[in-house]
Amino acid sequence: MILCLSGGIGGAKLVLGLSCVLEPNALVVAVNTGDDFVHLGLEVWPDFDTTLYTLAGVANAQQGWGREGESWRAMDALRALGGEDWFNLGDKDIALHLFRAQLRAEGLTANACASVIRERFGVAPIITPATDQAVRTTVHTDKGALSFQHYFVRHRAEPAIFRLDYEGAATARLSPVIHAALRDPSLEAIIIAPSNPFLSVDPILAIHGCRAALRGAGVPIVAVTPIIAAAAVKGPTAKIMREFGLPVSGAAVAAHYNDLIDGFVLDRTEANDRDAIEASGVTCAVEQTLMHDDAEKTELAARVLAFAKICVKRQGLKQ
Amino acid sequence: MILCLSGGIGGAKLVLGLSCVLEPNALVVAVNTGDDFVHLGLEVWPDFDTTLYTLAGVANAQQGWGREGESWRAMDALRALGGEDWFNLGDKDIALHLFRAQLRAEGLTANACASVIRERFGVAPIITPATDQAVRTTVHTDKGALSFQHYFVRHRAEPAIFRLDYEGAATARLSPVIHAALRDPSLEAIIIAPSNPFLSVDPILAIHGCRAALRGAGVPIVAVTPIIAAAAVKGPTAKIMREFGLPVSGAAVAAHYNDLIDGFVLDRTEANDRDAIEASGVTCAVEQTLMHDDAEKTELAARVLAFAKICVKRQGLKQ
Repeated sequence: MILCLSGGIGGAKLVLGLSCVLEPNALVVAVNTGDDFVHLGLEVWPDFDTTLYTLAGVANAQQGWGREGESWRAMDALRALGGEDWFNLGDKDIALHLFRAQLRAEGLTANACASVIRERFGVAPIITPATDQAVRTTVHTDKGALSFQHYFVRHRAEPAIFRLDYEGAATARLSPVIHAALRDPSLEAIIIAPSNPFLSVDPILAIHGCRAALRGAGVPIVAVTPIIAAAAVKGPTAKIMREFGLPVSGAAVAAHYNDLIDGFVLDRTEANDRDAIEASGVTCAVEQTLMHDDAEKTELAARVLAFAKICVKRQGLKQ
Repeated sequence: MILCLSGGIGGAKLVLGLSCVLEPNALVVAVNTGDDFVHLGLEVWPDFDTTLYTLAGVANAQQGWGREGESWRAMDALRALGGEDWFNLGDKDIALHLFRAQLRAEGLTANACASVIRERFGVAPIITPATDQAVRTTVHTDKGALSFQHYFVRHRAEPAIFRLDYEGAATARLSPVIHAALRDPSLEAIIIAPSNPFLSVDPILAIHGCRAALRGAGVPIVAVTPIIAAAAVKGPTAKIMREFGLPVSGAAVAAHYNDLIDGFVLDRTEANDRDAIEASGVTCAVEQTLMHDDAEKTELAARVLAFAKICVKRQGLKQ
């Protein structure tokens, strides 16, 4: 069994690859909840839904969010009323949100809700919000403190970030689904997907007890770089690294995760940094991490899993 | 100014007629909230929305609810997920529900929310939920206690009713919009629309202090019969009257309202009951109350208003 920590699009690509390599029930995906918010009365779970739609084969790949073959009747009518239309929700996407509201009204926890939803979509791998409690990313920028979606969608990630807060993380608890995976004797490795370290992975790691629980599982923890040729494939990762005064490189990401990970998968465009990463105590593999198609997603997933098996589990890291 | 108490379809017909006869700002419609419920995470206001859509000219007349030219993309997708699809919401209808959720999340009361919505729909007459608090009709039937929509939509109004409760009515307060209308020196009459007395009007009258406030306005209160030729035009009014052991007649409706009304508009098919109604102290007019088209709605509205002017305000009724 593999536990993968993931965010949105980039993470979902590797998750899809992992789902092709692993047995159907051998993959548990812990999804970032820092992007979640309540909008138009509905709970919106962007990273969960992107992962769900990707694994269900109904994601809109070009758009990078939402479902393929969508229509926009409700959103058009909402716009005509002068309602908030900055966060696009297609009609089929709205149906999922209404279904989630129904399940929540029946009293289901976030992870129980997620379980019903992925079954209805015919998705075998377990996808769970990282926590059942609310953890919300607040982005402190030169335009003031913004909730994540206001920063990301409304302001198109343009304001400069000087600090991130993961509200609720200190009192939240890891999903029981994740705890069960960490206790499972068949757990072989924990993979950190090539997601934004600050906006997608850190909100998971900030959950109370998360780092200790991950280290305590006693299996290699391997992160895959989201940086290729000193840039991010998509999204504001590189921009945020610059704003934080970090070099835009896989090595800087490896350093960011240094007190947690045993292995790091660096992109081949940055192979020169391999020795420096290994010198920091982290085993390093160099791979082509850009995933153009499903074959490349599967290929990278297989290589990451093979690498995790040979990673040396570091000792003495603080938990 | 006219204050009209109304429910769904039948009431909305007369309301449309009144809106054609009166100056744009001279009509205030107090709408039943007993049918309202929270469904799929959204507040559903069936009678308000029917009145709104009717006055905005976008109602689906054949269907009797919802908007014309609707599509069902979200509902179809919800059905595909196995979600609750017994209460139909079209895509444009969903947009209104999302907009309402947005306004509610901004902290607007029900009447303030209603005000924004009717302005966005270009509806001049004031339409307000009868109360800002939750008043919910519970239907006690031979199939057990059912919330209104479960009785009405899910069970198609088939179970036999033996009692109705208007949960929350004893502690609810009339909408401030209605109180303002009742205090307005230009108020000329209060009209009770030809809506279901038990399911549409009584949930309004049950609101704490409502009857006293209506009588205290000192203007004639006139009810229009929902019964024509010993039957209801649509809906379960006649069935419920039988279940309550009442004759199915306008006269029985007049008797039901007897301690409140000054005048009653009887259908011409039941003209024989006029003397009995007048003997009970209620002034009675006989009209053609069936409204096939907009001309007949306007005609009836004009006749009801003319009748209200000549109604004798009864003295000594308990408030």
